[in-house]
Amino acid sequence: MTSETPLTSRQRIRRAYSPQTLETLGEHLIERLGEHLSQLQRRDEVVLNWKLPEPNLSLAHETLSTAGDDPELLSRFRGLIEIAIRHGHNLHHPRYIGHQVPASIPLAGLFDALGSITNQVMAVYEMGPWATSVERALIERWGAVLGLTPGTFSGLVTHGGSLANLTALLTARNVSLKESWSQGIGHSNRLPVLVTQADAHYCVTRSAGILGIGTEQVIKVPLDGRRRMDPNALDDILARLRKEGTPIVAVSASACATPIGAFDPLNEIADICERHDVWMHVDAAHGGAVSFSEKHRHLIDGIARADSFICDAHKTLFVPALCAFVFYKDKQHRFETFQQDAPYLFDPSAPGMANIDSGMVTIECTKRAATYGLWGVWSLFGQQIFSDLIDETFATTRLFYEKLCEAEDFEPLHEPECNIQVFRYLPPSKYDLSEQEVGELNRKVRRHLMESGEFYIVQTNLDGVGALRVCVMNPLTNEADLDQLLSSIRTSALQLLESE
Amino acid sequence: MTSETPLTSRQRIRRAYSPQTLETLGEHLIERLGEHLSQLQRRDEVVLNWKLPEPNLSLAHETLSTAGDDPELLSRFRGLIEIAIRHGHNLHHPRYIGHQVPASIPLAGLFDALGSITNQVMAVYEMGPWATSVERALIERWGAVLGLTPGTFSGLVTHGGSLANLTALLTARNVSLKESWSQGIGHSNRLPVLVTQADAHYCVTRSAGILGIGTEQVIKVPLDGRRRMDPNALDDILARLRKEGTPIVAVSASACATPIGAFDPLNEIADICERHDVWMHVDAAHGGAVSFSEKHRHLIDGIARADSFICDAHKTLFVPALCAFVFYKDKQHRFETFQQDAPYLFDPSAPGMANIDSGMVTIECTKRAATYGLWGVWSLFGQQIFSDLIDETFATTRLFYEKLCEAEDFEPLHEPECNIQVFRYLPPSKYDLSEQEVGELNRKVRRHLMESGEFYIVQTNLDGVGALRVCVMNPLTNEADLDQLLSSIRTSALQLLESE
Repeated sequence: MTSETPLTSRQRIRRAYSPQTLETLGEHLIERLGEHLSQLQRRDEVVLNWKLPEPNLSLAHETLSTAGDDPELLSRFRGLIEIAIRHGHNLHHPRYIGHQVPASIPLAGLFDALGSITNQVMAVYEMGPWATSVERALIERWGAVLGLTPGTFSGLVTHGGSLANLTALLTARNVSLKESWSQGIGHSNRLPVLVTQADAHYCVTRSAGILGIGTEQVIKVPLDGRRRMDPNALDDILARLRKEGTPIVAVSASACATPIGAFDPLNEIADICERHDVWMHVDAAHGGAVSFSEKHRHLIDGIARADSFICDAHKTLFVPALCAFVFYKDKQHRFETFQQDAPYLFDPSAPGMANIDSGMVTIECTKRAATYGLWGVWSLFGQQIFSDLIDETFATTRLFYEKLCEAEDFEPLHEPECNIQVFRYLPPSKYDLSEQEVGELNRKVRRHLMESGEFYIVQTNLDGVGALRVCVMNPLTNEADLDQLLSSIRTSALQLLESE
Repeated sequence: MTSETPLTSRQRIRRAYSPQTLETLGEHLIERLGEHLSQLQRRDEVVLNWKLPEPNLSLAHETLSTAGDDPELLSRFRGLIEIAIRHGHNLHHPRYIGHQVPASIPLAGLFDALGSITNQVMAVYEMGPWATSVERALIERWGAVLGLTPGTFSGLVTHGGSLANLTALLTARNVSLKESWSQGIGHSNRLPVLVTQADAHYCVTRSAGILGIGTEQVIKVPLDGRRRMDPNALDDILARLRKEGTPIVAVSASACATPIGAFDPLNEIADICERHDVWMHVDAAHGGAVSFSEKHRHLIDGIARADSFICDAHKTLFVPALCAFVFYKDKQHRFETFQQDAPYLFDPSAPGMANIDSGMVTIECTKRAATYGLWGVWSLFGQQIFSDLIDETFATTRLFYEKLCEAEDFEPLHEPECNIQVFRYLPPSKYDLSEQEVGELNRKVRRHLMESGEFYIVQTNLDGVGALRVCVMNPLTNEADLDQLLSSIRTSALQLLESE
């Protein structure tokens, strides 16, 4: 094969489907990823390969501009892999302490690759018999760990926490407003509301917008002193709504809410929802994984009393994105989501299969084998690994909090309940900055650290003022990293103050 | 390390994050997948490893029941991979001719694995600078191939066709009913409708249910003799709705509809939608890829006139699930989906980034690097490979149609427009079966072929009668496979008839 002879259509297809090529390129990929992971663990690389969108977009276009007849497939492949690594995010660097996205267990990605390369999918059981089975087994296992009663509950897996919340709230809407699926929201006389708390993830309000409830029909329960949903305020709100006769779709609690990682008091909320006969939902995207830890599972006490709740394995079970679970306390509720229109692909010659066909209960029709990664690491290491990861990363966060308390020029903005810590650097008094200016300074420091590749942390707003936020999502982040973070923030802030 | 000494938490974590282990296990995986693909291409394996759900579920539970301290990690890994392969679907077998899920280009899975193992994600640009850039470049490229005008359109990538249709129809709803996002569907006086055609995918009606429009508020335009949306009927329906003052969310056309792969006449529909000032949407999940083929692109003439349309790369661009594209003719419309609530994670210190942050326009917040596979194969082989795949699989389907026409005991139920062919086996007249009984017989034959692992094809309902359906989603399916399929169906049917 030379570059002078144009390939035929069939030759191009045979090249693309060649098992030998898969092996040759795959071996290179694995070797390169092993080396990459070693470099990151040695802290031999930047955390983030920061570039503005424009040059990255130009390079992406350049890679796509090819005739594709390059005879040196391995060399072209190596070049592409190198570009992707050199322009991506190094989430496995122990100094990535940023969003609620983990330095995932690398081996989980291998199981995920098995699913991708062989293209295992679901919708109907027969298209993904193993993918469907491991998903079902994991729902049963994790549900039991979460305190649900085997045989009485059900669940599903979907592409991310936002979609999981949307699915569960759709179910809640259909149960609360019986005709809304078939006749629409416009059919009822009184406008329904969705109740959540002030720090809830934006996807809860978005769900109200999507589901035809309306974002202005979201009632936000005030927070208590620890930024948790205030149960007394919730009780008052529900009492008022019931008195008015306003239809209530659900109460959506958070475990935890994203800003500072505060866990709502689920047992108290469950008592109140039971008393007012309201569907209780919990967004436990981040916190559901504490169920594996003897030490921290108390944070979600009461979650098994909720009618529905969601947990993201791709957050605190440390598997790659996306792998989100929805649980229903009453297993029949899963059939309320779409009130069972029976689509064409469900075969009347095997009606019993509908009980296991994932497409009956998920917004996705074709769905990838999203749980292969979780199934693989659980089956390799046992469920103990999830407890280890929670305990280690929570302990590291606690250590960071203690360091913030000790440092004179830092202020932790709360005591951490999990692996999230919000704080501010406080500049020397001689600069005489207002609270807003301190917030702005912290944001600038964050941007500097991020762009330099030294650390990756995030910024947030707390009561309108900028702050720094870390989330320990790598179990290899150690004390030296934390000390260096404080030192780098301090240095960067002082440089910024001097240069202004 | 021996199995007698229990591992500490840190030791377990170091094992799970070891770069050397990643390489050792990864090399085995790649070698095994190369061998597996060779076996399938040689037709040395069954197509589907059929087992009922119960034994698979038991085995899945068994694999999860482990203490996890097995010192022989490679051997345990090999065992797990073997189980997953031996109990999964062999979609890469050339005798898989079933759902609209491809025998994906294996190398696409390697690029996907790069994204998974390093956990590249999006929502904000800085979390996935390369993932965001290749996604954006692919939207620009494919959009131009589809006939959109560079600089004027926009798009997004999401997890599957159902979610893509939901996202586009949500945008259409918000544009058509201006207050529906903030105030809900219940606020308007007149109940809105969604117009589609009788063979549209079930997710269109589901979208009406999800969006608060109501599944009974879906108006289905009758089909013409080729099962395409009848433009005259559409014109009449829209005229009546406009006269009544009924709010119309959108007209959703299909390119193609799933039952027989019929392509709606998009130019005629566009004329009508323009005349009545209605949002035109096209579900081109399956058909969008014909844009790459000189020979077949006429099938979607007019698609670039639609206000929104969707195309699944994980169908006819032959990449692994899931990778669905939404396109908006007017680039500003992407900001109507959520009417831009500004969530906490969008950083006020870099407001320009909102233009590229994927979370602003997708239902997903955290989103995996879903386009790495497509980016990789396009960059390796050029866009010509997509044309090759369309042309080859469509030609194979045409050949199958000709064989059906020639055979006396088979009946093609339509002339194929793409790679979908619906047909029936016709038993000898001596059995004197009714039309319904012939349909049932065809369903039973299908189940037999599927369970035996000889072929994987699907069943469908056409006007209430069971039929067989193939979709050629593997470019390596050849004439001998087609001959064998007819022969196997015939043998299986006659055996069933004799045994009854």
